[in-house]
Amino acid sequence: MDNIRKFLIEHISKTGGHLASNLGVVELTQALHRIYDPYVDRIIWDVGHQTYVHKMLTGRMDKFPTLRQFGGMSGFPKPAESAADAFIAGHASNSVSVALGMARARTLNKDSYEVVAVIGDGALTGGLAYEGLSNAGQSGEKITVILNDNGMSISKSVGSVAPMLKHLSERPAYYNFKRAVKKFFGTVPGGSLIYKLIHNIKTKLKRLLLPSGANFFEDIGFRYFGPVDGHDIDRMTFFISEAKKLNSPTLIHVLTKKGKGYPPAENFPNLYHGVHPFDPQVGVTEQNGETFSGIFGKYLTEIGQKDEKVVAITAAMADGTGLFQFAEQFPNRFFDDGITEAHSLTMAAGMAAQGLRPVFAVYSTFFQRAYDSLIHDTAIMSLPVVLAIDRAGLVGEDGETHHGLYDLALLMSVPNIEIFCPSNFTELKRCLTAALDQSDHPVAIRYPRGGELPHVELPAISGEPSVTVVSYGIMTEAVGKAILLSGIFAEFFQLISVKVKCLQDLKNMAESVSRTGKLAVIEDVAAYGCVGEHLIAELAKLNVFPKKVLLRNAGDGFVTHGSISDLRKLLRLDAESIAEDLQKL
Amino acid sequence: MDNIRKFLIEHISKTGGHLASNLGVVELTQALHRIYDPYVDRIIWDVGHQTYVHKMLTGRMDKFPTLRQFGGMSGFPKPAESAADAFIAGHASNSVSVALGMARARTLNKDSYEVVAVIGDGALTGGLAYEGLSNAGQSGEKITVILNDNGMSISKSVGSVAPMLKHLSERPAYYNFKRAVKKFFGTVPGGSLIYKLIHNIKTKLKRLLLPSGANFFEDIGFRYFGPVDGHDIDRMTFFISEAKKLNSPTLIHVLTKKGKGYPPAENFPNLYHGVHPFDPQVGVTEQNGETFSGIFGKYLTEIGQKDEKVVAITAAMADGTGLFQFAEQFPNRFFDDGITEAHSLTMAAGMAAQGLRPVFAVYSTFFQRAYDSLIHDTAIMSLPVVLAIDRAGLVGEDGETHHGLYDLALLMSVPNIEIFCPSNFTELKRCLTAALDQSDHPVAIRYPRGGELPHVELPAISGEPSVTVVSYGIMTEAVGKAILLSGIFAEFFQLISVKVKCLQDLKNMAESVSRTGKLAVIEDVAAYGCVGEHLIAELAKLNVFPKKVLLRNAGDGFVTHGSISDLRKLLRLDAESIAEDLQKL
Repeated sequence: MDNIRKFLIEHISKTGGHLASNLGVVELTQALHRIYDPYVDRIIWDVGHQTYVHKMLTGRMDKFPTLRQFGGMSGFPKPAESAADAFIAGHASNSVSVALGMARARTLNKDSYEVVAVIGDGALTGGLAYEGLSNAGQSGEKITVILNDNGMSISKSVGSVAPMLKHLSERPAYYNFKRAVKKFFGTVPGGSLIYKLIHNIKTKLKRLLLPSGANFFEDIGFRYFGPVDGHDIDRMTFFISEAKKLNSPTLIHVLTKKGKGYPPAENFPNLYHGVHPFDPQVGVTEQNGETFSGIFGKYLTEIGQKDEKVVAITAAMADGTGLFQFAEQFPNRFFDDGITEAHSLTMAAGMAAQGLRPVFAVYSTFFQRAYDSLIHDTAIMSLPVVLAIDRAGLVGEDGETHHGLYDLALLMSVPNIEIFCPSNFTELKRCLTAALDQSDHPVAIRYPRGGELPHVELPAISGEPSVTVVSYGIMTEAVGKAILLSGIFAEFFQLISVKVKCLQDLKNMAESVSRTGKLAVIEDVAAYGCVGEHLIAELAKLNVFPKKVLLRNAGDGFVTHGSISDLRKLLRLDAESIAEDLQKL
Repeated sequence: MDNIRKFLIEHISKTGGHLASNLGVVELTQALHRIYDPYVDRIIWDVGHQTYVHKMLTGRMDKFPTLRQFGGMSGFPKPAESAADAFIAGHASNSVSVALGMARARTLNKDSYEVVAVIGDGALTGGLAYEGLSNAGQSGEKITVILNDNGMSISKSVGSVAPMLKHLSERPAYYNFKRAVKKFFGTVPGGSLIYKLIHNIKTKLKRLLLPSGANFFEDIGFRYFGPVDGHDIDRMTFFISEAKKLNSPTLIHVLTKKGKGYPPAENFPNLYHGVHPFDPQVGVTEQNGETFSGIFGKYLTEIGQKDEKVVAITAAMADGTGLFQFAEQFPNRFFDDGITEAHSLTMAAGMAAQGLRPVFAVYSTFFQRAYDSLIHDTAIMSLPVVLAIDRAGLVGEDGETHHGLYDLALLMSVPNIEIFCPSNFTELKRCLTAALDQSDHPVAIRYPRGGELPHVELPAISGEPSVTVVSYGIMTEAVGKAILLSGIFAEFFQLISVKVKCLQDLKNMAESVSRTGKLAVIEDVAAYGCVGEHLIAELAKLNVFPKKVLLRNAGDGFVTHGSISDLRKLLRLDAESIAEDLQKL
């Protein structure tokens, strides 16, 4: 095994991180670094978890022991970390649009750097990639798109992209012929005119010689090269340098193998996509412990056995959202259309309009792409779609681009939606049942990454409570623990439904606040639009005003990477900090 | 002129509404109604403003005098209005995803209705349409997509779709050949085997015979028919009935002329896209009066003359957002990439990263599609993109699907963004200058549809004010008028920057509320996430609590269509209602 792969396996097996995708781009990254200067040229990586080799080659090998840890090196490109990282990248399909913006800036600013987007076949399923590609093709700007085709995204690549790409096979003959023709006519007098005259013939010829998928890229304005073996550095270097000579949009189709060079990862690329620390001799092992995602998937499968109107939808996250079991049992009622959050939700709305009961499981951070599908296609008609919003709240090591801190504010602002925030597995099941037991409005159920926390039993209050405490979701147990630690007599309201104005508890909370005069609301969402703000406003409408208020949440800033427990401490959302703040109140 | 067109012109010239697009689909709608039963089959119209003929043919001719008026007939499909309207539709590009959901529901429910999506060439530029098409093609579900190609969307259709479609020309020969082959082999014994054997030859042949754009649709799994003359009912009826015989995804490419049959609209389809009442003998005339959009466009052009780093971006709304003048003067610095809000903002972020100063003008309601591009691509890196959010607040006659009530809540929740809400033209200019005078964070400037309102001068307060009133944006003048009407001594804070925690005024407001004990916040946004909620929470953090609160806003429900003044009365956001409520407070 080569040294780069040894280094990757050695370090990622210790720290955890994205393994299989990085093993797949070892040669591609080297070829790119042979041709381009990453500090001057702009290499835009799509879904930046494949940039470990890029980080190694740009002076960050010594930082790998701190990978994805609090205060350590990010697992994604980060301009603040290195001038070689051209743009942030955690969500798929944005690279070509970013590259087009940079290419247009270069042209207007009369600069001369190169702009390169590296996009996977999975990311190609997203509509944003299509918008970027079709406009980049049309722009005529000099942009090189590297299509890193490993035949799979996080789940298998879906939609029509996969079969289209499968049609493609390497046709160097055509390019050699084209180059020869161009060269010949370039050297004879009047050659350029003749060259133009035969252009039409060439176009016809090209359509015969090019594989069918390539026609798509050529039709939208790209010069298509490939496919080329993505583990052959020299051949890739040749193609990339050929593309660099052209002053137009070019696309190089590179075939790579996810997990390349490490047999366990080659055989089980999904298992080795994102790994916890493991023994390289043994391979990754099943993580212990149930997760909210796992419970969700199992329980939905149970429901599916009883109710055949229930269908499950994911946007390329069948494993992550726990839907693999449902998919196996009910292949006809399981829909994974690719990295297509907007389409998936709009399609779900169409299903709901015709009597199915769609459940769309999506990570909070990716759900941001389906906001208009929620308002326009789902909520206005109050269609009974169930949104299973996974990875809500802090997600830990993936950092800024992945925390699920913004879904609550946006869900709250949209009429007709009920929002549930279960704090444990039992509540999650109850919420799912409740969501499917009605059919007159959409329901969002948001739950965190990982598993439930040990339940904290609060002693019955003797005497008058001195503070009203409100929390929900995974923060519930930390808040319970904080109340115990603080030794304060608190009246604790744990919300499950959080759309404040509809709360049955609102009256009780109002009475409690009237008595205690102190209100603390603890939650792991963005500050603006948090439940605490809505609650204070609703209490004010009832003419109930606390005298002191503590709103503790994830604040009004992006949250860095690190373990969830590190981040809770940072944000004062751990039990000890909350206890201190309750005492101060 | 035929009777349908006469009816449309007669009525729309009286009520205002969408004219040119409806004149273009007279025959297409008739052909669809010949083949399909709109009450059983599901016809999904993309951007539903082209459904007037559909409404005429489904028993709503008598409602045209009330078109788009408060309590009257909606200008868009609305299932609550008629069972013939299969789905709501105000935003482009969603129809194929909806249709796929419905087709999958039909299959699972073992129903037998037909599902048809009618999508324009403009809507095809949107990524959601690509996600829908590529998955519908792959699904194998029986779906008919009618591509209504009039060579333009609201602005001209852009991106690579237009040139791709232009390649297409009618090739009935191929289809006749194919049908003959199928028919022949269907009648001979063992024919189906022979038919299969020649399939490969047929595929090769098809690639030669089909126009190049058609390959795209065929590659992603559609059977392509067309192009067919969209004003020839019989020919369309033939194609649609042929498609109906196939049990697979089919696409019929229909060529229509926007404004067909009414020469002024044929010649100036943009001018006749959405019209105010006009004299059909004279044609539409220039609307009097300046608008926020117009002022924005003019002032940005002035800025552009001084600063060549400034570029303007729109998503197919050059006219609506007032950017046409900038586009004319600086064609190289103006970018309209189609109905591609997410791409447009992500591209803008790429431009900002490389030193340009992009200004992206977008309607509030369509901006909902770019929320992830705002968080992930713009705000995390705090890139200095300027968002010009037009049509913020109530928009009037377009109704539910178009009101700009949700942008504020979502903008507020995203870190690093400054939000400006000018109340008049002078402030709009000042905000734009301020946004471009800094380069360390994104700025959103939100302004309403229409023009500024007459300024209301409040008399200097003598004595102690009895209420603290806060408002911003276009509501400012109505609130001023309300204060005058009420006769109350109010201390009035007009905000321009509304991200509450950053407000310089926050201290003054806190002092005012401490004195008056009463706080009224008046705004035309959704209830949850409104400035009033944030303000009360921020005051609470300062230990300032009013004794009485009035939060008046657009509420927690979708708002119907009607004139803006009708809707303000409905929501008690008119000066008279506000005055009454202030008095009650």
